[in-house]
Amino acid sequence: MRRNCFAVIFTSVRNEGDNGYAAMAEKMERLAQQHKGFLGMDSVRSGLGVTVSYWETEADILTWKQQTEHLLAQTLGKEKWYQWYRVSVCKVLRHYEFFAEG
Amino acid sequence: MRRNCFAVIFTSVRNEGDNGYAAMAEKMERLAQQHKGFLGMDSVRSGLGVTVSYWETEADILTWKQQTEHLLAQTLGKEKWYQWYRVSVCKVLRHYEFFAEG
Repeated sequence: MRRNCFAVIFTSVRNEGDNGYAAMAEKMERLAQQHKGFLGMDSVRSGLGVTVSYWETEADILTWKQQTEHLLAQTLGKEKWYQWYRVSVCKVLRHYEFFAEG
Repeated sequence: MRRNCFAVIFTSVRNEGDNGYAAMAEKMERLAQQHKGFLGMDSVRSGLGVTVSYWETEADILTWKQQTEHLLAQTLGKEKWYQWYRVSVCKVLRHYEFFAEG
């Protein structure tokens, strides 16, 4: 992960039932990976869901937000999948990383 | 969550076994909540763990990083609890939030 990249923190609570969510989530991850400026994504859910995606520039985040199929996913997300979510767009100031030896 | 706050994204992979981790994690959450500038925390683990904490200023993040009991937790984390982690310190540029109706 490079310094001075940008991060989008997507924190959410889902509604009950799949209703097409899993297939769309997989598709969106695949499309994001192909999108300009995408650097990586970490996604975890256990009741609460937190997905962090990393991007080269703020412009890349805006074009991804407006990507046609992603707009449809956002609409369906509000209609069907999410009780609540918060999106935080961030500038990464610094990273540090630890790897255990052995 | 206010605009222009700061976020710390802690992404991690744990070692097997508790080894005192759960008690320390609970203690650290309690201490962070009492620390100057703490705004909130979202924490999820399912294999991968992602914890995002939000802070008023970058100085608050630095004093929390150097807090005595937190320093001990960081040392034990490297010795016993984590295979890998990455810390990303971020400036939040904007938030938006969705609540389902009804």
